[in-house]
Amino acid sequence: MKIILLTIGDELLTGTTVNTNAAWLGAELTAHGFTVVRAETLRDDPHAICQALQRARAEADVVIVCGGLGPTHDDRTREALADCLNRPLQMHAALLEQIKAYFTRRGRHMPERNQVQALVPEGFTPIPNPLGTAPGLWLQDASGIVVVLPGVPHELQGLMREAVLPRLQQLPGRPAILQRTLVTAGIGESELQQRLQGVESLLDEAVQLAYLPSPYGVRLRLTARAASREAAQQRLSELVAFIQKRIQPYLVSLSGETLEVVVGKLLRRLGATVAVAESCTGGHLADCITNVSGASTYFRGGVVAYDNAVKVEVLGVAPELLAREGAVSEAVAIQMARGVRKRLGAQVALATTGIAGPTGGTPDKPVGTVWIGLADDQVAFAQRYFLPDDRKRFKQRATAAALDLLRRHLLQQKVPRAAIFHR
Amino acid sequence: MKIILLTIGDELLTGTTVNTNAAWLGAELTAHGFTVVRAETLRDDPHAICQALQRARAEADVVIVCGGLGPTHDDRTREALADCLNRPLQMHAALLEQIKAYFTRRGRHMPERNQVQALVPEGFTPIPNPLGTAPGLWLQDASGIVVVLPGVPHELQGLMREAVLPRLQQLPGRPAILQRTLVTAGIGESELQQRLQGVESLLDEAVQLAYLPSPYGVRLRLTARAASREAAQQRLSELVAFIQKRIQPYLVSLSGETLEVVVGKLLRRLGATVAVAESCTGGHLADCITNVSGASTYFRGGVVAYDNAVKVEVLGVAPELLAREGAVSEAVAIQMARGVRKRLGAQVALATTGIAGPTGGTPDKPVGTVWIGLADDQVAFAQRYFLPDDRKRFKQRATAAALDLLRRHLLQQKVPRAAIFHR
Repeated sequence: MKIILLTIGDELLTGTTVNTNAAWLGAELTAHGFTVVRAETLRDDPHAICQALQRARAEADVVIVCGGLGPTHDDRTREALADCLNRPLQMHAALLEQIKAYFTRRGRHMPERNQVQALVPEGFTPIPNPLGTAPGLWLQDASGIVVVLPGVPHELQGLMREAVLPRLQQLPGRPAILQRTLVTAGIGESELQQRLQGVESLLDEAVQLAYLPSPYGVRLRLTARAASREAAQQRLSELVAFIQKRIQPYLVSLSGETLEVVVGKLLRRLGATVAVAESCTGGHLADCITNVSGASTYFRGGVVAYDNAVKVEVLGVAPELLAREGAVSEAVAIQMARGVRKRLGAQVALATTGIAGPTGGTPDKPVGTVWIGLADDQVAFAQRYFLPDDRKRFKQRATAAALDLLRRHLLQQKVPRAAIFHR
Repeated sequence: MKIILLTIGDELLTGTTVNTNAAWLGAELTAHGFTVVRAETLRDDPHAICQALQRARAEADVVIVCGGLGPTHDDRTREALADCLNRPLQMHAALLEQIKAYFTRRGRHMPERNQVQALVPEGFTPIPNPLGTAPGLWLQDASGIVVVLPGVPHELQGLMREAVLPRLQQLPGRPAILQRTLVTAGIGESELQQRLQGVESLLDEAVQLAYLPSPYGVRLRLTARAASREAAQQRLSELVAFIQKRIQPYLVSLSGETLEVVVGKLLRRLGATVAVAESCTGGHLADCITNVSGASTYFRGGVVAYDNAVKVEVLGVAPELLAREGAVSEAVAIQMARGVRKRLGAQVALATTGIAGPTGGTPDKPVGTVWIGLADDQVAFAQRYFLPDDRKRFKQRATAAALDLLRRHLLQQKVPRAAIFHR
């Protein structure tokens, strides 16, 4: 079933507000097996709204219109729909009472201008909005369905979940749609594409694969649609099996979990604790780890050793080693990991030291160079990576490299050199 | 000059990725005096792309197309444009060399797949992309201008700022536009609006004020357009003066600088160094501070004391104090700040301890409670804040509160209680 979204508001086009409603609706509708074929963002302009609505109705089964239902003069959606569909606005008495009651519950009188929110275009059914004053509207006619929702995110979400999705799900003839997100680390989009050569034979209109890159790694989004849930599941499983066989060591999660969540689960399972010593990542590694609720059960803490004196005094790195090898070196990364492990009493420790840039690079150690150290009760080693990028992305990529190194170590996986040096 | 945006990618319609590019482009183009009349989000589907492109060219002077220029099979924008505009793809030798050089700089060979990124539809001029492998494309013909940009946000932003906006600005007949971003901290959007009552008299079609809230604080974007640069400057200055008078203590920057940049400049000017002890912010405070290039001149480092044992052993917090007052308390925040200041040898230190949630709250200390400590050679004190929010936003808000406390302390400003307790 094809859906087109029309989100309305000048503030969305001037970038004052990010259009999170379109993203939320897209995710929710996709998860429920609908296909959003287009999303348009329009000005608060009746002519533009009408043009887009007519275009959308000609193409899609359902058009969802959101925003511009407020009580002020720059909210034009209600009148635009009425004029465009030739369905005059009518005062809806029961709705007016509900809006008045909304204000009464808050100890206020309804301002006169809110009356317009009880106007309903002929043939539309109002959907009461317990969270605000702008009701939703629903029209089902020979050209399909039009759903109208307020633009305030929590009101829109409440109306969708409580009223609109249940109604849409009752419509006949919908296919089963399944979706899965695989998370990878330590491998770029191009290299992934190369390793997955031949996957095209498993893909068609009904089964799709998308690459979603980020500094933390590339996510793969798999979508399968079929007449039955079982058939969709079957096709999805074939695709997952193909991908697993080709890129197993790089696969962090088969269910969309981030590196820090997966590492957290591994640590819990092993009953192990972790500590981190950060130079070039400057706290970002600890920040990621502690984004996971419950991290306190396995994360002891960290030392951000930005100044070399902190490396020496808190982590116990030997000053002569710093002088001889430089802070960005294999030996220092190892000593930092050993030092923080001992100092904070953790079973395993990670350390990062590198050159974030934009300044500080040398021909020998260019911007983007980073050593990541790992120490536990058995081993202590460091790996070199080269991640030239802007400062923030460098920190994010180095953080992902560190978490992935720990993940592979906990899984007793060999770390493929190629991946390390050439991300 | 009318602009229509076409952002392309299945992931935007399924809600996997929020369309921040459309918001960023909208803000940037509006700031430079262009009018975005519509933004469409489309699937990676050549037919849909072509239809939307033709529709958009008929209505707008400039069409900006972004996304779908990657090297993989689900990137369809390049071929869609070529077919739609009847401009066959041609291999661009110089561009191919640039893409190869991009890989060489990273110590790699260009994967064969990336060759397609050197294909340019006839008549388009490529815009080299130093930050990635997908170049921008520019077409100017009898029907207007088409700009094509990669969908990776930092690449898109780089190409817009360095190449596309300068070219668009050279087009004839545009008014002078000036823009300024004021950064605030410690005050919410509603309270700002209240304090700025009366500002409407300075605003009209040509002079605008937008509130841009984020967990780190509200930014105010001021835009003035006029026939001459001087006239626009005059109106902007009046607006800035009005705002300054009403909210001076909350104003972090008159030129868009973030809290961490402003605090860094203050520390440099005073020749002071800083260290941080973090519990509830989990490394995010250090991460923010080290996002500023050159932070190593004033940032000694930090201790992420997630486990109470780390608070005791590394920071020297008294165990009996932890037992009596709890980790989230005024006294512990102060001891953490004192401890890290001494341990890391900094002139001034910040400490955070609070309840990020979603678990761990009590009636006495609900989720969102945080104490922020500050110590220097003269004083040591802590302030309580209440910032209930989701886990990540809590960390961001607590980090901003800590940086703002330091900013005010360095400026010898009084900290208004109202702001602290009621954000």
